[in-house]
Amino acid sequence: MTDPLETLKTSIKALAEVKKYATLRDILSTMNAADIASLFEDDMPEEIVPLLYRLLPKELAADTFVEMEPDTQQMLITGFSDNELKEVVDELYVDDAVDLVEEMPANVVKRILMQADAQKRQMINTILKYPEDSAGSIMTTEFVDLRPHMTAEDAILHIRRSGITKETINNCYICSKDRKLIGVVTIRGLIMAESSQTMDELMEENVIAVTTMEDQETVAQQFSKYGFLAMPVVDGEDRLVGIVTVDDVLDVLEEEVTEDIEKMAAIVPADKPYLRMTSFELWKSRIPWLLLLMVSATFTGIIITGFEESLAKYVVLTAYIPMLMDTGGNSGSQASVTVIRGISLNEIEFKDIFRVIFKEMRVALLCGVTLAVCNLAKLLLFDRLAIMVAATICLTLVVTIFCAKIVGCSLPLIAYRLGFDPAVMASPFITTIVDAISLLVYFQFATRLLGLG
Amino acid sequence: MTDPLETLKTSIKALAEVKKYATLRDILSTMNAADIASLFEDDMPEEIVPLLYRLLPKELAADTFVEMEPDTQQMLITGFSDNELKEVVDELYVDDAVDLVEEMPANVVKRILMQADAQKRQMINTILKYPEDSAGSIMTTEFVDLRPHMTAEDAILHIRRSGITKETINNCYICSKDRKLIGVVTIRGLIMAESSQTMDELMEENVIAVTTMEDQETVAQQFSKYGFLAMPVVDGEDRLVGIVTVDDVLDVLEEEVTEDIEKMAAIVPADKPYLRMTSFELWKSRIPWLLLLMVSATFTGIIITGFEESLAKYVVLTAYIPMLMDTGGNSGSQASVTVIRGISLNEIEFKDIFRVIFKEMRVALLCGVTLAVCNLAKLLLFDRLAIMVAATICLTLVVTIFCAKIVGCSLPLIAYRLGFDPAVMASPFITTIVDAISLLVYFQFATRLLGLG
Repeated sequence: MTDPLETLKTSIKALAEVKKYATLRDILSTMNAADIASLFEDDMPEEIVPLLYRLLPKELAADTFVEMEPDTQQMLITGFSDNELKEVVDELYVDDAVDLVEEMPANVVKRILMQADAQKRQMINTILKYPEDSAGSIMTTEFVDLRPHMTAEDAILHIRRSGITKETINNCYICSKDRKLIGVVTIRGLIMAESSQTMDELMEENVIAVTTMEDQETVAQQFSKYGFLAMPVVDGEDRLVGIVTVDDVLDVLEEEVTEDIEKMAAIVPADKPYLRMTSFELWKSRIPWLLLLMVSATFTGIIITGFEESLAKYVVLTAYIPMLMDTGGNSGSQASVTVIRGISLNEIEFKDIFRVIFKEMRVALLCGVTLAVCNLAKLLLFDRLAIMVAATICLTLVVTIFCAKIVGCSLPLIAYRLGFDPAVMASPFITTIVDAISLLVYFQFATRLLGLG
Repeated sequence: MTDPLETLKTSIKALAEVKKYATLRDILSTMNAADIASLFEDDMPEEIVPLLYRLLPKELAADTFVEMEPDTQQMLITGFSDNELKEVVDELYVDDAVDLVEEMPANVVKRILMQADAQKRQMINTILKYPEDSAGSIMTTEFVDLRPHMTAEDAILHIRRSGITKETINNCYICSKDRKLIGVVTIRGLIMAESSQTMDELMEENVIAVTTMEDQETVAQQFSKYGFLAMPVVDGEDRLVGIVTVDDVLDVLEEEVTEDIEKMAAIVPADKPYLRMTSFELWKSRIPWLLLLMVSATFTGIIITGFEESLAKYVVLTAYIPMLMDTGGNSGSQASVTVIRGISLNEIEFKDIFRVIFKEMRVALLCGVTLAVCNLAKLLLFDRLAIMVAATICLTLVVTIFCAKIVGCSLPLIAYRLGFDPAVMASPFITTIVDAISLLVYFQFATRLLGLG
């Protein structure tokens, strides 16, 4: 388990303490930006970070800056001279500059925009106008665009002249005179082509593009589905305005999955790493659902209260309430989480609802009978319950699991159909509903089989 | 909500019914492989799929084949002549061919390998030797490798000659004579370079590579962290044996997230889309945890039984058991799921355990007090409980939430430290533990405050 990166970090720390800056500069300049950022943020005392940062070569410094958390970025900017700030801003790709501007307080934003050149400032402002989580907000406006009459040779010359400031040259887009997107050619296609072939002949005309207002999650799904490295973003008139690259999509996917998982665990997504959230922020993201679910649990209380007298006569029944509720809750969560994930992977659609319900009914019977048989043996042999009491518990188990699986699989699909996020219909919500169902079923069977009520 | 793809699918269905094959061929040849695959699998009657498939141009046919589910692939192969099969196999990239071979039954595999040329067959066999979920198993052996003395011009010529069969040319790797990986150059770097510059001068020597035996999840994390398009895979002697490309990583990420989510919902991961699993397979993936958790719930039963007589005297207490257990369970799940996700994003490590626990303690107090105050008001004003009974319930709430958050945040970290998958320590497991805790706390307070026991 000796991670070479950890070993390196230890040496760097030691070198920083004895101020061997020349050596540090040599080591740092061989490292990757993401690693330097995590080194600076997790392992170095905050006061020497600006000093170490200044040891980095210009381009690496900008790359490292992009990888840092907003609070470190702000700390560095505060210490920068205007010249130093300009150097960083000049090296940033537009989409990274936008991310930065979005995270910084107003006075810092003002300083950043003042240091950006007019063209970049305009690009930043364009992207800032798009709503959060839209394709427009994650795109970059630095892409290679070619004209249909250009030859492969022209195109490569054009890329050599302009490509250095473009985020990617792997996909080049061909636009008509009025800036409408009409085709795409990969750098591979350009290199393999005869130098006299024109874009008209080489380009793939059937370009899959997204519009600026498309949800970033949908964009990410298209990347997964088609295996793209970049996708063009067009405005309402089909004019090419930007591209989204796969590295940004990896971030989006991570973010969206975290959001889904949080929603499934009854947490209001917060968009901030856990260790950087204050206790108060964590409280704010957790208390709404806890409160709502606590209030919903009132129903289970009411059901039990309605049955209080009978329970007093047959107190043994109380001992099995938690087992019944938990097993029901777990069964329902399994179904709901499976369906939620299926929806977000586009494997399940609303039109499949009856197929899904029918499948879950069969699974529920299989699970219910297995658990009931195991439980019956336990109740009779170990707990030495009367046969009718054991039967009440086991029948409740089967019916509860049956209902739980149906509720669990159908609610996410219905939520999805109604335009809500299915992820909210996960474990905690399902559990609360299934609790009430299991108690109602339990007391029904108790009334019939044990003559209570 | 009119999806153009859906409209297209409807026209294609209509055209297929009236057998307009020439028109269909024209339409299909403009479509994307992933869309054609989903059209064939979800919208077309199975018997006409082979017919439509034969309308596709050769390369598109192979790409479409790769996008299909194993059962459709097998159905097509069964109908193929040896020649048709050879055409498909010839067009497949090695990593896709490996995926295919892994999914097919033995007799089909034999036919596939017989149609592959000797070189491809050898490559397939090499990759098949690596363990499932290792970097070796997801890599491709078709990459561009250059020598240090080559000039940029040589390199581009080399790519033009050999690049057509390589999966990606975006990253080219420089190897020494003994095949050791010594550097990487991007296609962008080659195009921007002077034609006489050598690889020695152009290459980035600090290459981040993975070994063949590395876990695919770790590989995927490196892609997310560094924003790579491709990564080299080396053997134990640092010899370059393959590359992993970002499109495969997107699939790995999706698969790994699904696995994590399933584990968190007490499901044994199954690696197959939901709608394609039989009820029996679903049962197999769900029953182990349901059984285990049901048995664990025995403890809560024992606790209640131990307190049976007192509960009989104070039956009102029973009505609040579900609310206390659910709120405790939800609080614990919030903490555990947050920590599990933090671990898998590398945001939280074991060394942070005390920081995490301390943070959760503060959040627990904030949440506990908020919920207790709301609940107290409800118990006194609506349920009209005696003050001491209400106090018992509310104090239990605070202490339960406190314990739930600590258990919820520390168990995943401990599991991680011990080398288990933290995802297993999610909601269902935590709920079972917290149930027992909440009951013990409840009855303790009841004994002290209400003089029961």
